[in-house]
Amino acid sequence: MSNQASDAAADLADCRVPLVREPLNPAQAERLAPSFKALGDPVRLRLLSLIASHEGGRVCVCDLTGSFDLKAPTISHHLKVLKDHGLVTSERRGTWIYYTATAETLDLLSTVLSVREGAAA
Amino acid sequence: MSNQASDAAADLADCRVPLVREPLNPAQAERLAPSFKALGDPVRLRLLSLIASHEGGRVCVCDLTGSFDLKAPTISHHLKVLKDHGLVTSERRGTWIYYTATAETLDLLSTVLSVREGAAA
Repeated sequence: MSNQASDAAADLADCRVPLVREPLNPAQAERLAPSFKALGDPVRLRLLSLIASHEGGRVCVCDLTGSFDLKAPTISHHLKVLKDHGLVTSERRGTWIYYTATAETLDLLSTVLSVREGAAA
Repeated sequence: MSNQASDAAADLADCRVPLVREPLNPAQAERLAPSFKALGDPVRLRLLSLIASHEGGRVCVCDLTGSFDLKAPTISHHLKVLKDHGLVTSERRGTWIYYTATAETLDLLSTVLSVREGAAA
């Protein structure tokens, strides 16, 4: 995991509380909101779902661009936003960059929104 | 539930799929992204958590404004965004408006992000 991604995940660590259980304090809300905002774009949501659902969990950027009618720099920008918010990590292998979804961050954000009993367990 | 809130919830009904399980199609991503964007603001996240965690589940707007150093119209604007995206419903009782979190929408968004087995059950 890159330092940036682990920093983003660490920054959210104390926010792992379902909001149906207790109100977020201002500091928690300030840290969580940018992650939800990063998900608030259809291209980023699709990119994240393509990465997260990929067999083996690691996807070459070369296999992502074909799903979109967008230029490579635009795809790269959206991947950078996902990475900056700890939603994916990246690893260079030779010519290509490979992306992996960060289960820890997804689980934390899912837990914040969960209305189910025992969600934070 | 107001028509607007139930419309927003119905609009998301076929998006209840964990993105670790299968990629979102473009139409699903277009419908989900605005809900995450609505959560991408710290004031709205705090408002939603204050409403969702309130004992009894229903909160008078008069009990929300005191938690923020913001004017009432700003709070009202943020509550309208939450309502427009099916995250809360509202009900007028005499002078005041009361807000309730929409468990159905929270559960759906939580499920989309879930990495746990059986999340969509």
